[in-house]
Amino acid sequence: MTVETANFLRNRWYVAALSTEVTGAPLARTLLNEQMVLYRDTKGAPIVLEDRCVHRQAPLSLGEVIGDHLQCGYHGFTYDRTGACVRVPSQARIPPGACVRAYPVIEQQGFVHVWPGDPARAEGQAPFDFPFVDKDGWHSRYASLRGQFDYRLLIDNLMDLTHLAFTHKKTIGAGGVADQGRTSTERDGDLVRVTRLMDNIAPAPVHVEVTGYEGNVDRWQIIEFNPPCHIALDVGNAKAGRGGHDAALGDKLIDRRTLHIATPETKTTTLYFWVSTYPSDAMNPEQEQIIYDRTMEVLDEDVTMIEGQQSRLTGAVPIVDINEDAGQIAMRQTLARLISEESLA
Amino acid sequence: MTVETANFLRNRWYVAALSTEVTGAPLARTLLNEQMVLYRDTKGAPIVLEDRCVHRQAPLSLGEVIGDHLQCGYHGFTYDRTGACVRVPSQARIPPGACVRAYPVIEQQGFVHVWPGDPARAEGQAPFDFPFVDKDGWHSRYASLRGQFDYRLLIDNLMDLTHLAFTHKKTIGAGGVADQGRTSTERDGDLVRVTRLMDNIAPAPVHVEVTGYEGNVDRWQIIEFNPPCHIALDVGNAKAGRGGHDAALGDKLIDRRTLHIATPETKTTTLYFWVSTYPSDAMNPEQEQIIYDRTMEVLDEDVTMIEGQQSRLTGAVPIVDINEDAGQIAMRQTLARLISEESLA
Amino acid sequence: MTVETANFLRNRWYVAALSTEVTGAPLARTLLNEQMVLYRDTKGAPIVLEDRCVHRQAPLSLGEVIGDHLQCGYHGFTYDRTGACVRVPSQARIPPGACVRAYPVIEQQGFVHVWPGDPARAEGQAPFDFPFVDKDGWHSRYASLRGQFDYRLLIDNLMDLTHLAFTHKKTIGAGGVADQGRTSTERDGDLVRVTRLMDNIAPAPVHVEVTGYEGNVDRWQIIEFNPPCHIALDVGNAKAGRGGHDAALGDKLIDRRTLHIATPETKTTTLYFWVSTYPSDAMNPEQEQIIYDRTMEVLDEDVTMIEGQQSRLTGAVPIVDINEDAGQIAMRQTLARLISEESLA
Repeated sequence: MTVETANFLRNRWYVAALSTEVTGAPLARTLLNEQMVLYRDTKGAPIVLEDRCVHRQAPLSLGEVIGDHLQCGYHGFTYDRTGACVRVPSQARIPPGACVRAYPVIEQQGFVHVWPGDPARAEGQAPFDFPFVDKDGWHSRYASLRGQFDYRLLIDNLMDLTHLAFTHKKTIGAGGVADQGRTSTERDGDLVRVTRLMDNIAPAPVHVEVTGYEGNVDRWQIIEFNPPCHIALDVGNAKAGRGGHDAALGDKLIDRRTLHIATPETKTTTLYFWVSTYPSDAMNPEQEQIIYDRTMEVLDEDVTMIEGQQSRLTGAVPIVDINEDAGQIAMRQTLARLISEESLA
Repeated sequence: MTVETANFLRNRWYVAALSTEVTGAPLARTLLNEQMVLYRDTKGAPIVLEDRCVHRQAPLSLGEVIGDHLQCGYHGFTYDRTGACVRVPSQARIPPGACVRAYPVIEQQGFVHVWPGDPARAEGQAPFDFPFVDKDGWHSRYASLRGQFDYRLLIDNLMDLTHLAFTHKKTIGAGGVADQGRTSTERDGDLVRVTRLMDNIAPAPVHVEVTGYEGNVDRWQIIEFNPPCHIALDVGNAKAGRGGHDAALGDKLIDRRTLHIATPETKTTTLYFWVSTYPSDAMNPEQEQIIYDRTMEVLDEDVTMIEGQQSRLTGAVPIVDINEDAGQIAMRQTLARLISEESLA
Repeated sequence: MTVETANFLRNRWYVAALSTEVTGAPLARTLLNEQMVLYRDTKGAPIVLEDRCVHRQAPLSLGEVIGDHLQCGYHGFTYDRTGACVRVPSQARIPPGACVRAYPVIEQQGFVHVWPGDPARAEGQAPFDFPFVDKDGWHSRYASLRGQFDYRLLIDNLMDLTHLAFTHKKTIGAGGVADQGRTSTERDGDLVRVTRLMDNIAPAPVHVEVTGYEGNVDRWQIIEFNPPCHIALDVGNAKAGRGGHDAALGDKLIDRRTLHIATPETKTTTLYFWVSTYPSDAMNPEQEQIIYDRTMEVLDEDVTMIEGQQSRLTGAVPIVDINEDAGQIAMRQTLARLISEESLA
């Protein structure tokens, strides 16, 4: 267990599910090797418990929500939001110590965040804030996937978006993305920011499809890694020579703020959550649907590539780094330092 | 191997198949980690051999029954009922010592029973007897399933039928089953008997569907565990206040004798056999078919729940016992004692 | 790793694919536990590289062939036929030492042969030659399969064709194949030759179907094992009493030269390649198609049987040898000696 969890930061908020995934029917999820069950009480508040009945270890996710409580589907042990067993149907006496673990939970911006570590340390800590979801006049679209890989490989993927030119060349990639840009990498405390600017390059196929604009563009990718596994993207493009990221509204062609979350499930499996936001007046529903559909293809392409990468990983083979890996390397160093600090704390 | 088999009693009769599953075509089955092949000779007698040719270890279950013998489908080595090789097609001489293991076998009451242990110790031992199958004027229905769990978890399931109120609430469960009964547990040598009586409770949905009687009932569950893995049930209900188990025929609504068998296949997989018997005049064929169909749903629900339970099992987490677990605990103690005695014998 | 590869000869040519399987789209194959990618350059020449990018270990088989080069589908690292990285799209400088392993490759007679061992030792070594593919007036049919077994079990299968009478009784088997022949086994250096002659036996079902001849036949099977894993068959039959293998053309009913190749993929999985050749004037296309279709059934039957055999293998059970195993035993001894010699070299 020690070995397995040594790749994870435990005392952090992690997204366990989209808000829409948590309902009155129990949902099983594994985070950092811990089996959890999520459900909503009668007021709609999310509750997260250990997914194992104290009685005979049946998964509580096979049970049923009764009012505000979760009832085991085997012999009916019933738990409240604190994980305390409040009913044993076949007898009046509740055995002392009959409780399962309850996890701190916060719902925010369309995500259910869970704290897998020491609950006392959750005090005063806020989940990652992605304010664009809350902005007036902005729309959001969500997705929930799962991949067979170490969560850090997904973060690697997002720290270097030159891969769009190859992995996603049919949709959001374009030749110039990899070979005509300039990248800078900054550390800001535990945050790692990668900024890549590509001036006067050809537009990506899906962008032409959506905007109808076939001329060259100035394109930007501003990537922020926030521990433990949140990557916020400010990506877009404007007509070439109109100021790029600072172009006037009419000159901007695509302008989105997107959050990718790589929640570790086990050492080699990852929950992948995504939300993309955009100003409602920037696109009509048809255009937005095209972007959404193509992005689902893009996320699938990433999952396929990273699963392939995982299948080739071996500790025995050295890897070769290039300039564009600076963001990844800074991210990996930050994570390793934080994990080390946590293990010593 | 020692570790793997330490959960099993070896010198016992185990059901390996329903009678209807054993035919003139070889059937592969694994019992207590041993790979066996079952077939019938020209007189219909069942034969059970090791499922591995002495020559090149091909599974004999991929072969063909030729008369009373089983012929390997690879190079034609042919075996008789004792496991002796009686023919090597490509040469006249049969190599000395060319034989596979033959298992003692008895067919009885619709089941093929096999003795995986020392054949000498099978002498004088009889398989578990379930006389209701043979009763004049009684009908029987059989089922054969398989689950991914330790066989003892299935026995646990059957030793405490309060779970009907939760796992099977849509069919044979009813609220009062768990919270309005009284249970007693007895040991009778190696047999463990649990008696649960539930007076004046609501009838179960499927019982109303079959009998049309919507009034309250007196319900009984008499459960007998017989080592190594046979659980005989006397379950039923009568109109409330008419004497329950001892009610007159016209007042009894449901009255069945059922045998559940949890044959260990491997440490974490189990063959699950079932027969249910009832007096022919108690139900018409339509009613009986409803009961049968619903019971198949019930067995599937049990398999799903126990597979979930198996997936959550870890030696590291203590379990909480309640009063209703007395039968399970007595059963587990009996099994552990018998296994220990066998290992010392 | 040492243990895993101890069953393989490394410094040999192995068939990695049929010629038709290697195209302008990269093909992933594993040989002797090594992950390779195969593709063709603009002139059609096959190229075989290690299937793992030096940068982030993505499988190159998920990439794209660009001209003569293979481009990684993740960040665009591009490799030439020697495995050298010749382009890193996002920067001008190619990191020193950025190269993957390139494997010696020879295409010949419809097969792509790869040398997994020390490239220096490939010098002067030729892949196995099967001249019938090149013969004027002869036709060839190919097949490519995969099985879940140790490659030596497939060679075992082919060294003793008496199994046709059992495993393939519905197609190319016939009773007399196993019990009416005489077999001789010879060693010729590292080659092992098994010759089995069956005089005046019933014809096989598929042969009657193709030739219409229902009389008895003289049948021959001449099997040559060539290390590491090539088995050349000269099999056929002629009207009984007309000279068998030396019968005049009009008396020969079936006359084929077939090559079976059992390339080890991993310790327990095998790539199975096959080519069958025959004089064009011996059969019309309809007849040949029947033979081909039935042979595909035969190869599937073999894969099923050998996978069953693999599932029953355990080091703990002794096996029984018979006379017909002489070829297998000689083959196993030869392989073991060559593997031992290689490990000492």
